[in-house]
Amino acid sequence: MTIILNAKEIKSCVEFNHVLIPIIEDAFKSLALGKTTMPPVLRLDIEKYHGESDVKAAYIEGLDSYAIKVASGFFNNQKLGLPSSNGLMLLLDSKTGILKSVLLDKGYLTDVRTAIAGAIAAKHLSNPDSSTVGIIGAGIQAKMQLEALLLVRNIKSAYVWSRDFEKTKTFVENLKGKINIKINVCKSPEETVNSSEILITTTPSKSAIIKSEWLKKGLHITAMGSDAELKNELDPKIIKECDIYIPDSQSQTSILGELNHAIKAGLIIINPNLGRRNNNDVTVADLTGTGVQDTAIARYTFKISEEKGLGLKID
Amino acid sequence: MTIILNAKEIKSCVEFNHVLIPIIEDAFKSLALGKTTMPPVLRLDIEKYHGESDVKAAYIEGLDSYAIKVASGFFNNQKLGLPSSNGLMLLLDSKTGILKSVLLDKGYLTDVRTAIAGAIAAKHLSNPDSSTVGIIGAGIQAKMQLEALLLVRNIKSAYVWSRDFEKTKTFVENLKGKINIKINVCKSPEETVNSSEILITTTPSKSAIIKSEWLKKGLHITAMGSDAELKNELDPKIIKECDIYIPDSQSQTSILGELNHAIKAGLIIINPNLGRRNNNDVTVADLTGTGVQDTAIARYTFKISEEKGLGLKID
Repeated sequence: MTIILNAKEIKSCVEFNHVLIPIIEDAFKSLALGKTTMPPVLRLDIEKYHGESDVKAAYIEGLDSYAIKVASGFFNNQKLGLPSSNGLMLLLDSKTGILKSVLLDKGYLTDVRTAIAGAIAAKHLSNPDSSTVGIIGAGIQAKMQLEALLLVRNIKSAYVWSRDFEKTKTFVENLKGKINIKINVCKSPEETVNSSEILITTTPSKSAIIKSEWLKKGLHITAMGSDAELKNELDPKIIKECDIYIPDSQSQTSILGELNHAIKAGLIIINPNLGRRNNNDVTVADLTGTGVQDTAIARYTFKISEEKGLGLKID
Repeated sequence: MTIILNAKEIKSCVEFNHVLIPIIEDAFKSLALGKTTMPPVLRLDIEKYHGESDVKAAYIEGLDSYAIKVASGFFNNQKLGLPSSNGLMLLLDSKTGILKSVLLDKGYLTDVRTAIAGAIAAKHLSNPDSSTVGIIGAGIQAKMQLEALLLVRNIKSAYVWSRDFEKTKTFVENLKGKINIKINVCKSPEETVNSSEILITTTPSKSAIIKSEWLKKGLHITAMGSDAELKNELDPKIIKECDIYIPDSQSQTSILGELNHAIKAGLIIINPNLGRRNNNDVTVADLTGTGVQDTAIARYTFKISEEKGLGLKID
């Protein structure tokens, strides 16, 4: 028997708040301790329509279920009045492979687990007294990364830049009612970096936006936009020159981000000595999104849905 | 809006008969003509439970939808009284990535498209007057490959061998009422090869069952059991010594079957001159199962389900 959960049910199970932080942290710990099986991402490109579907999957040892997740990005959709992101998660029984649940979240759980991973990166790497954040991009992750950061840092001001100045203004206007901090529109990415102790890049840019000469002491950067070979938000010199570089999954970032470091996000959670050493270190978290995050949030969603008795049973 | 189709609905849409042959043939043609995007298979192993989930996906140029397919094999399931195979297919819109349908087929469509590919291989490679078939294995594919072969060749006798003699006897007894040909139980795989003009191997064996010295003139072999690096049913010398070797997808078989040939199944369909040259040629079709077959059968199923007005709409 398979339980079908629709997007509305899923949103009622998974509120976007601090409860999710230890859930995703545990997933990163399992990844760092080698207690996971996580094959390379399957990626299907449909160039004609500027679209792609990515499939991620991960089994975490000892857990009775694992997720397979499809996330699609179709970048002509906006012109059609449709969201560019889409997706669903499948939860399977670890012992039998039987499909326990189809989570028709339309990408919501991916958005949430991605934003929470950003908050975890900032929690473990940024200076604890950081009160300013710069956001590069004005899409859904720009908003959610900012909201997630507020769960772990006492932010007073945000500085937002995106390629489209009008879109940035609208983005900031829409946020003002919802988030009780000062939010400013920037005219250049340099202005954003200058104003911020934490910088979050959320764009699908194919050329570097952030220059290494703008870096200043103590800055923490979470780069979460680059999740494919051709995507790149940071000047490569930043990776070379920063004090601490932490990818979420080295095996993924070495392919998807052209990088090659041995320290994984999970290790920082287990051993904080591997992270920032002083207030002046420049730290970079390079997040591509991992299957273990999907397994963690799909399992959590399913557990809550069972408690609430939600979903449609199909034989 | 996504349409959820259950196993019973899917079986009512897709009868296992000759109608499916041109549908799967067209998929192979597209693959051979390079009109497809088919990324490498994602495979997640759960060694602890002797299980695996494979994900395949393929986009065929010009078609308005594409499939992503999950197939799981958990080989302890039999002890639990459960089928070892399981799975589902997802059908997505080629222009927007929106999930059109979830096909909860529990692996039925994979079984069907796999058996039909076997029939296509025999149709294009075996001697047309072949009237005897040997089947190695006594599982679901042993049965379905035999049934599919009857769609393309006038078979009079089948010879079945599997490792478990009692299981083979039961398998043959169960078939006798359903298929109107002579079916014989063999005591050795050699006896099976000796008796047959077409040989179909359907086991997950990890060591070669069929020896090259047993080969005889005119034999056609369809090897469909080996679909993973460690699986192997044929003595490697057979691949070397046969006259014509045809993998379904060279990019897959070169990894999954340790082989390296340039001719694909689809090319034979397009140009029969690339296949058997005379009655004496020994031909081998090496089938690992391809994403294009999944896209073809998922699209067909969805089309019929729409005509019949089946499925559950979920927003």
